[in-house]
Amino acid sequence: MDIAQLSNQLNQTLYTLRYGDNPAELYEPIRYIMALGGKRIRPLLVLLSAKMYDEDVENVLLPAAAVEVFHNFTLMHDDIMDKAPLRRGQQTVHEKWNANTAILSGDVMLVRAYEMLLGIAPDKLGKVLTLFSKTAAEVCEGQQLDMNFEQREQVSIQEYIHMITLKTAVLVGFSLELGAILQGAPDSDAEHLKQFGDNVGIAFQLRDDLLDVYGDKDKFGKQVGGDILSDKKTFLMLTALEQASPEQLQTILDWRDNTAAGITEEKVQAVTAIYDQLHIRQQTEQQIDFYFQEALRHLEAVQVPDERKSTLRSLALQLMERDS
Amino acid sequence: MDIAQLSNQLNQTLYTLRYGDNPAELYEPIRYIMALGGKRIRPLLVLLSAKMYDEDVENVLLPAAAVEVFHNFTLMHDDIMDKAPLRRGQQTVHEKWNANTAILSGDVMLVRAYEMLLGIAPDKLGKVLTLFSKTAAEVCEGQQLDMNFEQREQVSIQEYIHMITLKTAVLVGFSLELGAILQGAPDSDAEHLKQFGDNVGIAFQLRDDLLDVYGDKDKFGKQVGGDILSDKKTFLMLTALEQASPEQLQTILDWRDNTAAGITEEKVQAVTAIYDQLHIRQQTEQQIDFYFQEALRHLEAVQVPDERKSTLRSLALQLMERDS
Repeated sequence: MDIAQLSNQLNQTLYTLRYGDNPAELYEPIRYIMALGGKRIRPLLVLLSAKMYDEDVENVLLPAAAVEVFHNFTLMHDDIMDKAPLRRGQQTVHEKWNANTAILSGDVMLVRAYEMLLGIAPDKLGKVLTLFSKTAAEVCEGQQLDMNFEQREQVSIQEYIHMITLKTAVLVGFSLELGAILQGAPDSDAEHLKQFGDNVGIAFQLRDDLLDVYGDKDKFGKQVGGDILSDKKTFLMLTALEQASPEQLQTILDWRDNTAAGITEEKVQAVTAIYDQLHIRQQTEQQIDFYFQEALRHLEAVQVPDERKSTLRSLALQLMERDS
Repeated sequence: MDIAQLSNQLNQTLYTLRYGDNPAELYEPIRYIMALGGKRIRPLLVLLSAKMYDEDVENVLLPAAAVEVFHNFTLMHDDIMDKAPLRRGQQTVHEKWNANTAILSGDVMLVRAYEMLLGIAPDKLGKVLTLFSKTAAEVCEGQQLDMNFEQREQVSIQEYIHMITLKTAVLVGFSLELGAILQGAPDSDAEHLKQFGDNVGIAFQLRDDLLDVYGDKDKFGKQVGGDILSDKKTFLMLTALEQASPEQLQTILDWRDNTAAGITEEKVQAVTAIYDQLHIRQQTEQQIDFYFQEALRHLEAVQVPDERKSTLRSLALQLMERDS
């Protein structure tokens, strides 16, 4: 099974999608954000999951694309809420146009995502839409929790994992479940693939947190230490806050909310130094590995010959070991 | 057929809806906006349409409520875009909480509206969701056109009618179509009911435009002349702009964008005087009647005994003749 080839097929599908034309102000931002690219991980996972049950994934292409459209809808709205100026190195929609346009274009994207699922066979449609809707609401809950956490003094590691599970992981899990359901996989397989995806999704987000601090400057697309500079409560920060000595805690708190000009490098270095002292990097890698092993355990339980799992396994591994 | 009784059943359904609990910041605004009330016209139309084919509308209650949830989702997002401080005399969600909350709670409402339709019989589900999605996208297109028109110098009457058709009328049309489809009405009946609704929806919006200027101060919930004060391009204003003499046109343009303090009463009176000179009230009433007659023509064509159409006919008439 060739990922590059599958990726091609997927991009072809995404490229030929028609969202609408009039009024242009509503539909141009959709084409814009969809053209920004990205790894297209979620739809690829839909296809890889489907391929385990049927080589012919023609019927899965549009539902896979629907997941990518939904994902980009969440990005468009999240970027407004987070006041993010850039997305994949380009202006965000609310910056290039305005917030109203980003709200309304996002709304239409959510509707289009649903529409793209309506070609699913009638005997599976209700089930898929029920799971998709549940997932969509959970992603919104995750975003709300993320915003809540910014306003809170204390957030536990457990709360953080719950938040990223909703905000990031459940859509990865749904992607795998979707591919399986569409190809008539047994319920237990679909459920294990969902769990595989949820765990990969959590590990993926923890890897993201890690790369922000310990990523390769040249390969990582964003500023290294961006999370530290914006006082983001990442897994690394929350772990450090839990384990810091009184002196280390004081240092972190002194730097927190210090956004004076010119302190950039110094702040990142100071907080990273404490992370190093507390072995936060190693602890985060352990957590990533924990969720990755959980994921593999569920993949093991899927009732298809092992050779059919290899592409999914190696893609998951790539996502864990990525340095950008 | 008793509208009050049907309305009771509907309110009971709306009252028992559960949107979710955690995080509270996400779900509290949904309960808030749904509790603000309103005429509940759209779900009532779903039920009345359904009743023409089957006295038992138990299976239609939840889909009818879905339309009301969808409608309130559009209100929540429109209010952000329009920077509206009040909705039904109460603070709008983005005022009471903030814009981010209104964006995200609205998103979940759209998802919940879809979920509430998933109990529809599998043989009808795909069709209903296709029509619902088409309608939802059209409503967004209408809102975008409405915003575009604010920025434009010239808008034709035809463009205006197209905009209100999308923004307001198609959801009324869908409501009637939905009730018919759910009770197994013939396709041609469903289509005529859709057309009936679209035309009632246009007439309803024109009535709204009219009431803003010529409504009874005591009964109309908003400030009389609000549209004039905010330079809104309503049917009345666009008709006046088309028919004004050079002098009248100059007067209107002089007042336009004049938002100096204390001119409120004077501006409303001056513009209304020109409306009076041009018989805008009568012309608007003629247009309302035109669309109402179109609506009735489609209701005539529906293949059920005439006595079953009476409640729908009299409700539509009430909506046309309402003074608030």
